[in-house]
Amino acid sequence: MTSEKRPKRVHDFALTRWRGGTVDPRPCRIETRVRYAETDQMGVVYHANHLVWFEMGRVEWLDRLDLPYRAIEKEGLQLPVIEIGCRYQAPARFDETLVIETRFIGVTRARARFGYRLIGPTGIPIAEGYSEHAAVDKDLHPVRIPDWLLEVLDQPAESEEEQPA
Amino acid sequence: MTSEKRPKRVHDFALTRWRGGTVDPRPCRIETRVRYAETDQMGVVYHANHLVWFEMGRVEWLDRLDLPYRAIEKEGLQLPVIEIGCRYQAPARFDETLVIETRFIGVTRARARFGYRLIGPTGIPIAEGYSEHAAVDKDLHPVRIPDWLLEVLDQPAESEEEQPA
Amino acid sequence: MTSEKRPKRVHDFALTRWRGGTVDPRPCRIETRVRYAETDQMGVVYHANHLVWFEMGRVEWLDRLDLPYRAIEKEGLQLPVIEIGCRYQAPARFDETLVIETRFIGVTRARARFGYRLIGPTGIPIAEGYSEHAAVDKDLHPVRIPDWLLEVLDQPAESEEEQPA
Amino acid sequence: MTSEKRPKRVHDFALTRWRGGTVDPRPCRIETRVRYAETDQMGVVYHANHLVWFEMGRVEWLDRLDLPYRAIEKEGLQLPVIEIGCRYQAPARFDETLVIETRFIGVTRARARFGYRLIGPTGIPIAEGYSEHAAVDKDLHPVRIPDWLLEVLDQPAESEEEQPA
Repeated sequence: MTSEKRPKRVHDFALTRWRGGTVDPRPCRIETRVRYAETDQMGVVYHANHLVWFEMGRVEWLDRLDLPYRAIEKEGLQLPVIEIGCRYQAPARFDETLVIETRFIGVTRARARFGYRLIGPTGIPIAEGYSEHAAVDKDLHPVRIPDWLLEVLDQPAESEEEQPA
Repeated sequence: MTSEKRPKRVHDFALTRWRGGTVDPRPCRIETRVRYAETDQMGVVYHANHLVWFEMGRVEWLDRLDLPYRAIEKEGLQLPVIEIGCRYQAPARFDETLVIETRFIGVTRARARFGYRLIGPTGIPIAEGYSEHAAVDKDLHPVRIPDWLLEVLDQPAESEEEQPA
Repeated sequence: MTSEKRPKRVHDFALTRWRGGTVDPRPCRIETRVRYAETDQMGVVYHANHLVWFEMGRVEWLDRLDLPYRAIEKEGLQLPVIEIGCRYQAPARFDETLVIETRFIGVTRARARFGYRLIGPTGIPIAEGYSEHAAVDKDLHPVRIPDWLLEVLDQPAESEEEQPA
Repeated sequence: MTSEKRPKRVHDFALTRWRGGTVDPRPCRIETRVRYAETDQMGVVYHANHLVWFEMGRVEWLDRLDLPYRAIEKEGLQLPVIEIGCRYQAPARFDETLVIETRFIGVTRARARFGYRLIGPTGIPIAEGYSEHAAVDKDLHPVRIPDWLLEVLDQPAESEEEQPA
């Protein structure tokens, strides 16, 4: 909402507490239209809804890898969110069409991370954030991220030595 | 969800990117009972709902200062969330009664921050997080946090030189 | 919102399309405090949230029969909503404490119905509604409501020959 | 969920307690993709979310009349929901693309009504419902539906003498 908090680089914030990180060669953009239900009495979107939009972006990102999340769940694997962060840059308003931009940040044997940007109608940044996921089985017991998933997620990309700010 | 991510101190995470911070002499605890509507098909609470519980804690915290948020809004001031972070430690489940613990982290002329812990029925940590707020007027234009609010928020507390991990 | 739509009797509306109905000897009242997240940009609570409050009332009603819904689910039985109705009488606002009043309307071999009233701080009626439920197994296949549940729900109450308006 | 409750005609249910009703010459269809956030621990969509989908359909229906709801609000007019009804016919599931079909049912000086059908991927009916709306000003005081709105809504359509079941 104020300019001094504007990140210097795309996905600065997405690297919070994350070592490493690659330039995602598969950025994914989808659109969503703001629902009345998503607003609050401040006249703008309630801040928890941005996390749902991140989920929409993530689902679409996996789809484009031919790895729909519903198929992952059918394999008995689930990827619950274990950490989330979001910085709100400008309010989102009812009936606006927003762009949800999703990038893959990185994966280890135990965790995977995605970064997000929400962009408003005139190109104005609405929010940026990240989600970190663990892998669990049907009973929510932690498991290692299986090879078949790791291989798809961790396709070679241009490595960029990035460190959290 | 895994032990190696367990924070060393309470509210470690709440200090992410925040300079300074005091020991809040006014911790506030309320309870909430998990609604069916708050669960998802993983069988546990969907992660965006934790942010709503943080809001409940914050509203109560302000109440206990005789500074109800609805009264703040009547003064023409609003405190939108400009940054949020949450680390999920264990799933929350339908019908559980959770404790929402809210602490004041700090305030500057432009921002205020709260830290939160969610605690499950057996004392198990469910999540910890923080929210950072700007001050805006009715038209959502940024304003400085007014003196009357600053004075109430920033009551002398034991100062503790804390730095983000 | 207008007086000509005010029901003549309590739970008139709850009997819509329902034959029979008894005077529930076990009315149940709980309170809920309106969350900021539940408001929309009209400055009042978004209408879908009233259904969640009905759910809270229903869960509590079952609790008081020593029949918690989580225990019903553990028996492999689920009671999805198959019809819902709500009439909104006055807006609910942020931070108000509302009373959720739940009454049992009736049960057949295949369906059960509950009626609800939401009451505002000054006793003003906020909404009245009903939910009708089927019984399904874990795979969502329809089943008859089992005897153990029927017996608890359908305890003798004063019968009143009521017909839908 | 059971076949005997299948309505004999389209929008039977939408006419509940409503006198008259016309065949809407402007049915409107949009799609929505089920979000993970919209599911609950039953493994299907939580029933309150269907009301949000109805809202999406209604907003689109108004758009196609060149009467976007955001423009109506700019005129100082709001159309809060004063009655809602929904019958659930089959569960909606994560990641399904649903069709939201919206029809205009009728308007009086004080009220307007819309009917909805939700249709699943294979053409299966998911739910049908209706919403009735009052007109209020910015302060939520009831007003008559203004002529400019009445004229657009109540365009001549083939009249069909329908009575509520």
